[in-house]
Amino acid sequence: MEFTLEQIGRNAKAAEAALRILPANQKNHVLETAAGMLEEQARRLLQANAEDKKAAEENQMAPALIDRLLLTEDRISQMAEGLRQIAGLDDPVGEVLSMKERPNGLLIGQKRVPLGVIGIIYESRPNVTADAFGLCFKAGNAVILRGGKDAIHSNQAITQVLREALASCNVPPDAVQLVTDTSRKTAEAFMKLNQYVDVLIPRGGAGLIQTVVEQATVPVIETGTGNCHIYVDESADLSMALDIICNAKTQRIGVCNACESLVVHEKVKDALLPMLAQRLAPKQVELRGDDKSREACSSIVPATEEDWGKEYLDYILSVKTVAGIDEAIAHINRYNTGHSEAIVTKDYDNSRKFLEEIDAAAVYVNASTRFTDGFEFGFGAEIGISTQKLHARGPMGLKELTSTKYIIYGNGQVR
Amino acid sequence: MEFTLEQIGRNAKAAEAALRILPANQKNHVLETAAGMLEEQARRLLQANAEDKKAAEENQMAPALIDRLLLTEDRISQMAEGLRQIAGLDDPVGEVLSMKERPNGLLIGQKRVPLGVIGIIYESRPNVTADAFGLCFKAGNAVILRGGKDAIHSNQAITQVLREALASCNVPPDAVQLVTDTSRKTAEAFMKLNQYVDVLIPRGGAGLIQTVVEQATVPVIETGTGNCHIYVDESADLSMALDIICNAKTQRIGVCNACESLVVHEKVKDALLPMLAQRLAPKQVELRGDDKSREACSSIVPATEEDWGKEYLDYILSVKTVAGIDEAIAHINRYNTGHSEAIVTKDYDNSRKFLEEIDAAAVYVNASTRFTDGFEFGFGAEIGISTQKLHARGPMGLKELTSTKYIIYGNGQVR
Repeated sequence: MEFTLEQIGRNAKAAEAALRILPANQKNHVLETAAGMLEEQARRLLQANAEDKKAAEENQMAPALIDRLLLTEDRISQMAEGLRQIAGLDDPVGEVLSMKERPNGLLIGQKRVPLGVIGIIYESRPNVTADAFGLCFKAGNAVILRGGKDAIHSNQAITQVLREALASCNVPPDAVQLVTDTSRKTAEAFMKLNQYVDVLIPRGGAGLIQTVVEQATVPVIETGTGNCHIYVDESADLSMALDIICNAKTQRIGVCNACESLVVHEKVKDALLPMLAQRLAPKQVELRGDDKSREACSSIVPATEEDWGKEYLDYILSVKTVAGIDEAIAHINRYNTGHSEAIVTKDYDNSRKFLEEIDAAAVYVNASTRFTDGFEFGFGAEIGISTQKLHARGPMGLKELTSTKYIIYGNGQVR
Repeated sequence: MEFTLEQIGRNAKAAEAALRILPANQKNHVLETAAGMLEEQARRLLQANAEDKKAAEENQMAPALIDRLLLTEDRISQMAEGLRQIAGLDDPVGEVLSMKERPNGLLIGQKRVPLGVIGIIYESRPNVTADAFGLCFKAGNAVILRGGKDAIHSNQAITQVLREALASCNVPPDAVQLVTDTSRKTAEAFMKLNQYVDVLIPRGGAGLIQTVVEQATVPVIETGTGNCHIYVDESADLSMALDIICNAKTQRIGVCNACESLVVHEKVKDALLPMLAQRLAPKQVELRGDDKSREACSSIVPATEEDWGKEYLDYILSVKTVAGIDEAIAHINRYNTGHSEAIVTKDYDNSRKFLEEIDAAAVYVNASTRFTDGFEFGFGAEIGISTQKLHARGPMGLKELTSTKYIIYGNGQVR
């Protein structure tokens, strides 16, 4: 059945009113039920996925993208397990963050409430369908999903199972809806559905995020791109620096918290860079550096201005030498994307200065940037990593999917 | 001197880096200095304002709008006093909101930091120029102001004084900049200056806010419109209800937290409505109600569907009768603008239900909606009242002009 966006919006708003007051145990019951039903109906999901895979192959989609699209028994179990884990997390809704009495006797409190209706725009990754539903739902929100068109059959099947699970628990199935019209025109209209959608979260690559930021009139939480730096200070423990750089660069290259650029104090470049080139050689990491870095290590190729601002997501690392921490901070603040930045240092003042002056969602002393992640931060879940300053910054867990409202207890006060 | 928007953006970013780390005592010194200079240079401000006034009169601007535009010695003193009060408030920047050690030894904290560069778009009210600067600056932000074109001379003079005050304290004057090109084209470009502006706050009427929400690609905090309801429950103390309704409707009619709609339980309508009509008669408040309300009180004129969603900002009140609290909540959640809603009741369960289920920035039991205000909430200041759910909801003080960043202390951790 096809719905207009307008109808989808109305349905979501109607579901929202019920979700807003749904007790935690009922939400958890839905999540457990949905997990079980996804596993039970694996065959149905795999059949739908096979259609998507067939179309993708006919369209000669790149193997990496087909892999991203693929469902297997294992991946379905992982989706189910994800929902069970979300069921195990604390319900963020209802917490009263503060409560104060004013001189006039009004008691004013601030209470955590759901955001309302969340729109998620994502690429052709079917697992996001269950994952995004789980997180939004646990935080009391209705969710409208708009996934990539290449995964449409898989997404429809998953959404249908989730809706059946909701209905079987007597919770409005419109807690999750999928925009099945994957045309660009409908996507654009979705991004302007201010009357019904409280926030839009794009999940995907830089291009998708840029499109949403440019076209949406619904408030957007910008996630994602990370041109992350590691600055190796004059006083750094070079062995620690090598471990951290290698980890942040190569442990997983396609992620937003991977290191893309090394900033190195000129006094340690000669000691550090040749060792680094050696350590990174087995992974064939290309080093692109400025002139001074190339004097220190002949295998470094010349960097261009464009390299400083680049999120490679590849086995490439840019190398910039600086005369001190002030230049390092200025360089990083100029070229970073506000994601994750690290200093390796033994100097107390420099550690404080870096933490203070670097403008990013996560600033590290003596640790890998790879820790910027909802699970690593102990949130138990993650809907994305915000690189904007409004509402949420850094890894977003369940709390970041909530808003607040003021509750005021009076006994007849007037102004 | 005219700058391009691009240049203004670059200037703001450069100033931001200095403001981010400016100690509270230096910020307060700037605010005190600016307050003194505004008073000392009152004549210069009045001269500039006279030019705006002359042009407004030539353009036959309505008297109420000319009054809004007008500066007087008194109003200049009030602007200065406002800056001194902001100097007296706690600096929100630098507070560490939480700090936890993870099992791997990483110490992860969340610290309050400035938002960065804030854009304010407002109408022809020169006092907003000093006020918005003061709040944004105290929270460590650079601000770019774009005021209404009718106040351009006044705004230029005020901004110039503020910049002189900044310079005299050795703080970058670009902490405040005015967009002097008041063309629509430049306003539109300003709303898309994502590279330099972190958040845009429109201050003004519904039309202005709507335009900004529709056109901006920079994240916006939507402020303002309030279709506020008071629900008089079956169990209400009617004398308290009358006091609260009269206060919320008539104490000041042109404000967003004024009551626009009365929702009344049908069992108390006969007792309440005639008394209410009598109490509101001296202010000549027009009551527009549904059929049942008109049976209870003959002076009520018929309401149309359009009335339920209307923010009158006038001596008009719509009256809707309901059969109980569920109908009241459904009606309010359907027509409200997410601002302020109140119940008058003696019933414990109904008070909880209303607080729980009403979807608005501020929900009251037994008090006037007029308290939704940064000063009344004890924030000491207010930049506006957010009616959106993202980032800030309700009155916004200094804390709402900040973001956070994660600071992470490690000793060599890698993943």
